[in-house]
Amino acid sequence: MTDRLTGQLAHRAAALDAADPLRHHRDAFVLGDGVAAYLDGNSLGRPLHVTRQALTGLVDDAWGERLIRAWDEQWMDAPTQLGDRIGRVLLGAAAGQTVVGDSTSVLLYKLARAVLDAQPGRDEIVACAEDFPTDRFVVQGLAEELGATVRWLTADRRTGVTLDQVREVLGERTALVLLSHVSYRSAWVADLPGITAAAHDAGALVLWDLCHSVGVLDVALDAAGVDVAVGCTYKYLNGGPGSPAFGYVAARLHDRLRQPIQGWMGAADPFAMGDRYQPASGVRRFLSGTPPILAMVPMRGMLDLLETAGIAAVRAKSVALTDFAIEVYDALLAPHGVELASPRDPAVRGGHVTFDHAHFREVTARLWERGVIPDFRPPQGLRVGLSPLSTSFAEVLVGLRTVADLLGLLSEQPPTGP
Amino acid sequence: MTDRLTGQLAHRAAALDAADPLRHHRDAFVLGDGVAAYLDGNSLGRPLHVTRQALTGLVDDAWGERLIRAWDEQWMDAPTQLGDRIGRVLLGAAAGQTVVGDSTSVLLYKLARAVLDAQPGRDEIVACAEDFPTDRFVVQGLAEELGATVRWLTADRRTGVTLDQVREVLGERTALVLLSHVSYRSAWVADLPGITAAAHDAGALVLWDLCHSVGVLDVALDAAGVDVAVGCTYKYLNGGPGSPAFGYVAARLHDRLRQPIQGWMGAADPFAMGDRYQPASGVRRFLSGTPPILAMVPMRGMLDLLETAGIAAVRAKSVALTDFAIEVYDALLAPHGVELASPRDPAVRGGHVTFDHAHFREVTARLWERGVIPDFRPPQGLRVGLSPLSTSFAEVLVGLRTVADLLGLLSEQPPTGP
Repeated sequence: MTDRLTGQLAHRAAALDAADPLRHHRDAFVLGDGVAAYLDGNSLGRPLHVTRQALTGLVDDAWGERLIRAWDEQWMDAPTQLGDRIGRVLLGAAAGQTVVGDSTSVLLYKLARAVLDAQPGRDEIVACAEDFPTDRFVVQGLAEELGATVRWLTADRRTGVTLDQVREVLGERTALVLLSHVSYRSAWVADLPGITAAAHDAGALVLWDLCHSVGVLDVALDAAGVDVAVGCTYKYLNGGPGSPAFGYVAARLHDRLRQPIQGWMGAADPFAMGDRYQPASGVRRFLSGTPPILAMVPMRGMLDLLETAGIAAVRAKSVALTDFAIEVYDALLAPHGVELASPRDPAVRGGHVTFDHAHFREVTARLWERGVIPDFRPPQGLRVGLSPLSTSFAEVLVGLRTVADLLGLLSEQPPTGP
Repeated sequence: MTDRLTGQLAHRAAALDAADPLRHHRDAFVLGDGVAAYLDGNSLGRPLHVTRQALTGLVDDAWGERLIRAWDEQWMDAPTQLGDRIGRVLLGAAAGQTVVGDSTSVLLYKLARAVLDAQPGRDEIVACAEDFPTDRFVVQGLAEELGATVRWLTADRRTGVTLDQVREVLGERTALVLLSHVSYRSAWVADLPGITAAAHDAGALVLWDLCHSVGVLDVALDAAGVDVAVGCTYKYLNGGPGSPAFGYVAARLHDRLRQPIQGWMGAADPFAMGDRYQPASGVRRFLSGTPPILAMVPMRGMLDLLETAGIAAVRAKSVALTDFAIEVYDALLAPHGVELASPRDPAVRGGHVTFDHAHFREVTARLWERGVIPDFRPPQGLRVGLSPLSTSFAEVLVGLRTVADLLGLLSEQPPTGP
């Protein structure tokens, strides 16, 4: 690339950072001494500085000093209190419908199974063949076991599933529609309200996977009449590796859906040690085992930040970051034959951008060695996830310029192998 | 009580502590400034001092600095590596059969369901009506859904299920025997090898709940030919509130048992993002979602201690502690009408002791206010769980003397209410 182009883009990044009303939030995160550009906040969000103290505080106080008494004093209600907070700040969900616990895979299973059980006479599941593996695998396993049929939608890999595609397969046999709100690969934003309404018209229930939208998009579950949803907390909620997922179940469905994994923490009175399982009232019945208290600690700090910033401002910065990534792509990556695998229209683009190139598996490995950290998604996608509060425009430029440099180096070398 | 008796018991506790070869390990734990006696290590183990640094180290290094790269570098194999270590140090399990992840309830469900699916033509489950609620609730839910029958064994509440009782209900319809190795209430140690062999003779498979035995008893799963097992890590493994459970699946069953919750982390190549679920080889296939890495941190320090001390020495101290608790009971509690609800024979007694008295619900609340912390198990059990490496004999005496004092005070007062 020319020095002039480099200088122009650097100037542009600096101007965007200077004008960013959320820029000071970046100081709240552990940035990593050897990290030149972190472009994977949608896979594992950075830790916050306050997380250290929050964790050692738990060790010294609630755990070390209050010990088992802390269950009565604060921990028993943590799954629903934290769930309510996620619901209020990020999901457009009234209290009493969101709960934290289990992994996303386990929650997907529990809620998908509960929906299928509650729809007798209906034996079809609508799902997307391009969705994240766990969603597809869970559905495959349930369908095989229950003798249901999956109607797989094949999405355009550069966009995603459309309302029309869903409408075509909906019918009186449809029990469940399971789709991602934001595609893990292309970042396509599905028409959540439209698809939800169409599913309801057909008598089906919807399960939305919010893993790539929670914390970066303004989600409005109650307003759209969503039935059930799940989402990750280790991406844009910075909950740390393997932090527990959340589940949303609309209040009107609490008594209709049966919890398949009947554990003591979803029982009406866990410490009664009663003979028969009686589900707790409300969303608590979708808990199974002992809540993962320690693993719920880091996400609290991020919820504080997100609440302070406001999800509308977070989304605005997210759009600006991905717009800028595409601007840099046009200038530096397109000339190397890289293709944009995400929508240009920000209205239907989530918090990340994916680029395709035959060399990207190799490029990603070399980037990681240099402290530039996107992730790779087969077959040839370099995925750039820009967590709004912890990512600067300058960081985006540093990262993508390094991608361009490596592509330049690789194109000068003879091909390596078949 | 007399001053003389108090003095004798204090002298005895001091002598036992002085002679205890493991006494120095107690310094490794956060003891809590306001904690006079912690008698609930079998419900929530105390934190270790090293846990603080281990947690902040994760924040700064693997998470903060390596970020998503840490999955490739160390986290992907954490569930099986940690599982292998638990298996080797505590379970008598060869490598490749133990995995960490999910809650105990979810793992119970997954493994019980997998066993039932693998036993076509058999529709009975043997379980114990006195076992911990989650075990019973999970079995009830599965039985209702699958049309199976639970053969409930009614145990003597002061001991537990015997081999003869199990033999009486085993038959050609038995698919699964699910029992606790150590009863959560009485601490009765079931005849794990005998019951396992009897179940096998009948063509059934066994699922042992090791929650109250792992880390305090010398468990020998491979030698007994156990099929599948689960256990907690927040009790005697000090993993912290809600830390993930472990599951054991004998190698001979890996290909026979189907994972009901097909998630990406149990797939052969999670990052291939393939179309069809292909289970990973070995015990890894029993994983579902993203492993809870942060929540796996605290138990590592405890495994270091347990490995150093050796499980045989830990068990010897556990027996000495519970023997002493019963000695103090005989001297101070029996005169108040308290009954022993655990076996006197240490060969069939686990790491805790339960005492029964009509006033114990009220007594427990008052004890907690004074920093003496056992737990209460309905209908009238005061349960004293003595984690061997973090509990001193003096602590046992302080705790039980306070129980006696409170019973004395209560008996001097007029009854309160109906």
